[in-house]
Amino acid sequence: MQTRTELSTLGEFGLINRIDSQFKMVNKETIKGIGDDAAVVNTDGKELVVSTDLLMEGIHFDLTYCPLKHLGFKAVAVNVSDIAAMNAIPKQITVSLGLSNRFSVEAIDELYEGIKLACDEYQVDLIGGDTSSSRAGLVISITVLGVAEKENIVYRNTAKVGDLVCVSGDLGAAYMGLQVLEREKQVYLSNPDMQPELNDKDYAVQRQLKPVARMDVIHSLRDAGILPTSMIDVSDGLAAELLHICKKSGVGAVIFEDKMPIDDQTYLIGTELSLSPMTAALNGGEDYELLFTVSQADYEKIKVVSDISMIGYITNEVKNAHIMMKSGSLIPLTSPGYEHF
Amino acid sequence: MQTRTELSTLGEFGLINRIDSQFKMVNKETIKGIGDDAAVVNTDGKELVVSTDLLMEGIHFDLTYCPLKHLGFKAVAVNVSDIAAMNAIPKQITVSLGLSNRFSVEAIDELYEGIKLACDEYQVDLIGGDTSSSRAGLVISITVLGVAEKENIVYRNTAKVGDLVCVSGDLGAAYMGLQVLEREKQVYLSNPDMQPELNDKDYAVQRQLKPVARMDVIHSLRDAGILPTSMIDVSDGLAAELLHICKKSGVGAVIFEDKMPIDDQTYLIGTELSLSPMTAALNGGEDYELLFTVSQADYEKIKVVSDISMIGYITNEVKNAHIMMKSGSLIPLTSPGYEHF
Repeated sequence: MQTRTELSTLGEFGLINRIDSQFKMVNKETIKGIGDDAAVVNTDGKELVVSTDLLMEGIHFDLTYCPLKHLGFKAVAVNVSDIAAMNAIPKQITVSLGLSNRFSVEAIDELYEGIKLACDEYQVDLIGGDTSSSRAGLVISITVLGVAEKENIVYRNTAKVGDLVCVSGDLGAAYMGLQVLEREKQVYLSNPDMQPELNDKDYAVQRQLKPVARMDVIHSLRDAGILPTSMIDVSDGLAAELLHICKKSGVGAVIFEDKMPIDDQTYLIGTELSLSPMTAALNGGEDYELLFTVSQADYEKIKVVSDISMIGYITNEVKNAHIMMKSGSLIPLTSPGYEHF
Repeated sequence: MQTRTELSTLGEFGLINRIDSQFKMVNKETIKGIGDDAAVVNTDGKELVVSTDLLMEGIHFDLTYCPLKHLGFKAVAVNVSDIAAMNAIPKQITVSLGLSNRFSVEAIDELYEGIKLACDEYQVDLIGGDTSSSRAGLVISITVLGVAEKENIVYRNTAKVGDLVCVSGDLGAAYMGLQVLEREKQVYLSNPDMQPELNDKDYAVQRQLKPVARMDVIHSLRDAGILPTSMIDVSDGLAAELLHICKKSGVGAVIFEDKMPIDDQTYLIGTELSLSPMTAALNGGEDYELLFTVSQADYEKIKVVSDISMIGYITNEVKNAHIMMKSGSLIPLTSPGYEHF
């Protein structure tokens, strides 16, 4: 049987020491991590990039099917993804947790194991945080700090007419993975002895449970000598993100149905669950890929960068975006808007 | 009747725009605030100081007697206090909120009014955050960034034997204020028509509801040419904080009962509620005063700085601290530990 140690046996300082002992600082800029009123970071005159996310149980994750280790990884990855979308390098994170006594010390260890995996993967230092009791479910608040040279920072409001619209990886799989998990949860709730059948859906499920921040793309673009003209990460679906770029930049865009990168498994699950793979790609969300624009002058450079699809171009049709279907019809992109209230 | 606008009428982006429009950036280092994947901060080669706090309804605050405007102010002030305790200057904050639909747009406006008051008071820029739905009560997560020259940062692990122990302001009033509010809540719950009697307790109540981060002390010490040898802010009571300094610095301390700064109202409420003012000062918490040590060589300088009490000195009795009572007996300081689990 698994050991269960109550959080109260550790206490707040015991928990902090336990966390502190598991994390070694890797960045020379991290002067002081956990253990004082505040952490200290040397920035050496670079621009600092700061982003924060609040994840609430029952809203952003469901512990019925989301293992705590994956959740820890994901919580860090989605923050790192925001730093990637600024074309910056993540360096430090703070992690604050609201915990109910439903969580044992072992459960918290599992969560931090995932956080540590992500810290290793993205080479970021855990420099602080806060732990608190929660009367509701688990609350995770992460703030990430990154750095970049001033001239390398890429905003979302600087796309230019004629620029190529590019996206990394593939789209829609994370949404399909969520639908699979939701269905399995219902099956499980009605018959707990039933084993889940996820073998041929492992990629989509993985995309939902353990998304990857595309720092590799940031490095590939740097190596290829490409500075995007605008960039955003795809957290709410491609349509919403492209519309953000168009609105903020005062431009329009056309993308092409037959250029959209969609994985075979996304099509497969779409057929099985009667869901449109294209809708999943446009409005599904949680892909955490990078959507960016590059100057046409960079065409020769970008076409050899792996795992990047050129899906369209920027137009002068202010604040509007369309998708050209294979049938030849031009359909306006809409964002149902990811409303949390 | 007060207008009530549902949060759902604004939506997430509407809420963000509403917040954004109310906050103007005041620091030249704040390059980009709300509106992209991340905020951008220019640090000009200084050391960056980072702290974060998670405040949960029902654990850290009770909306029965804590007005939202005061809560917003307090949430920022307690974070700024951590930056002050590093002898740094606060510059930017991120504010993440978990909100249930129990909160109207007007309620959120009130909360941000308090946040804005604190931003003005401490000259910090709101540069980002996250808003989310919450199934439980209100969740507030704030991260604050500050800067300091490397040689000016004061840690808690650098107190030296012979140093003078100093504290700003007075201690124990915030705890007494909380007891008064808790009593009034019980009176109110049993008889809602009863008017609260808080007139002669306004100072203590104010200390609890709207604590002040002692940035003024940081500036006074600078003006006086004093660099503390160690510093911490008093959030969990003087005893716990002094023990932190002793343990981290590998030293001991003796403080004197008759030197402890305690306000008349703290004594008054203590008498009325049969609570010990000295216990409130030592273990009560939430005073957010600064506890620091200075070299004996700075004695002449520190004694003319206003609102500072010299309460004792650092000894070589490793990791232990005592209080010398007026009676002449020496009592070991203990920290019941502020346990959140």
